[in-house]
Amino acid sequence: MTAPPAQDLLALDPAAQDLLFRRARTANTFTDEPVDDDQLRAIHDLVRYGPTAMNAQPLRVLLLRSAQARARLLPYVSSGNRVKTAAAPLVAVLAADIDWHERLPELFPHRAQARDGFAGDPDGREEQARLNAALQIGYFLVGVRAAGLAAGPMAGFDPAGVEREFWPDGRHRVLLLMNIGRPAADAWRERLPRLSYPEVVRTL
Amino acid sequence: MTAPPAQDLLALDPAAQDLLFRRARTANTFTDEPVDDDQLRAIHDLVRYGPTAMNAQPLRVLLLRSAQARARLLPYVSSGNRVKTAAAPLVAVLAADIDWHERLPELFPHRAQARDGFAGDPDGREEQARLNAALQIGYFLVGVRAAGLAAGPMAGFDPAGVEREFWPDGRHRVLLLMNIGRPAADAWRERLPRLSYPEVVRTL
Repeated sequence: MTAPPAQDLLALDPAAQDLLFRRARTANTFTDEPVDDDQLRAIHDLVRYGPTAMNAQPLRVLLLRSAQARARLLPYVSSGNRVKTAAAPLVAVLAADIDWHERLPELFPHRAQARDGFAGDPDGREEQARLNAALQIGYFLVGVRAAGLAAGPMAGFDPAGVEREFWPDGRHRVLLLMNIGRPAADAWRERLPRLSYPEVVRTL
Repeated sequence: MTAPPAQDLLALDPAAQDLLFRRARTANTFTDEPVDDDQLRAIHDLVRYGPTAMNAQPLRVLLLRSAQARARLLPYVSSGNRVKTAAAPLVAVLAADIDWHERLPELFPHRAQARDGFAGDPDGREEQARLNAALQIGYFLVGVRAAGLAAGPMAGFDPAGVEREFWPDGRHRVLLLMNIGRPAADAWRERLPRLSYPEVVRTL
């Protein structure tokens, strides 16, 4: 007896599995169709419920819409990513707020005093900010796809340069860029291989 | 004229939105119902398609099923997390493989030479491993919920101790623990406040 197909073992319906993971792909080119603020608000309204340690929610998103704002980013983007970033309908700069502890009294009221413990621990704060903002970027990418849009996440850029340009107060760490839009006809490269279950999961 | 409700602006159907984000919650207690390997295989089969930089997929998952394995973990778990971790049907230890570059010739064949560049850059490798494995943990958490299960992610533990205990070769960084199971009747605490759109998103 063989196990049933993986998609039948999930509570999530197959169309949603396709939309979010199985058929979703990283887009490299986009149509001219704009991505409007209502769509971004709807994505945020969904993914803001994703969990973070101490409910700290350190992710901050900077949307580059204007030509001027886009031009400020491009010098820090690797040459292989520059053309598609210049042309995408929307570019999101995804950053972690390393002073997330200041919001703990509101966001984690039953342990509000944790704020003071982290105030003297900038290294620990930055590590938590990077981890939890990256989790939130995972949720955000799923949210972009939930909106019927394609995401083009990019790690090829100069983070220190982007931080100086857009967050000169030194309070944020830029983790990833993401182009967002409707995929063009030639948006996809061939899908790359994925690791198998025994390569990823070990049981004790 | 007001904008339509956020859930109507998404391509993902409202039931799936509820399953993955709106009604999904971090569980603190679980029923005794086991979580079997087929469910974990189905979760992996879905979320392995989530994107990572250079398709490197650095996340490694250690499932603690046996009582002996669970007992090895508990001394490193913070006291506030110990009881629920001892009782959960399944505990996943989520770690990043800092030697992910060794797989690039298979996983990113059109730039296989990137392996050699990263071989001499352990700090850059570790930063990429932490970022991309955390993205993958975001996908994994969504996948646990897609399987109709509840996740209980936990940051309160001693990562160096867990690494020594389960990955003595020094090649992995443990990022998060996650209890997995069916939520018990008293699984939820009150939902904590989430940041609003203007607190998270800025547009230029």
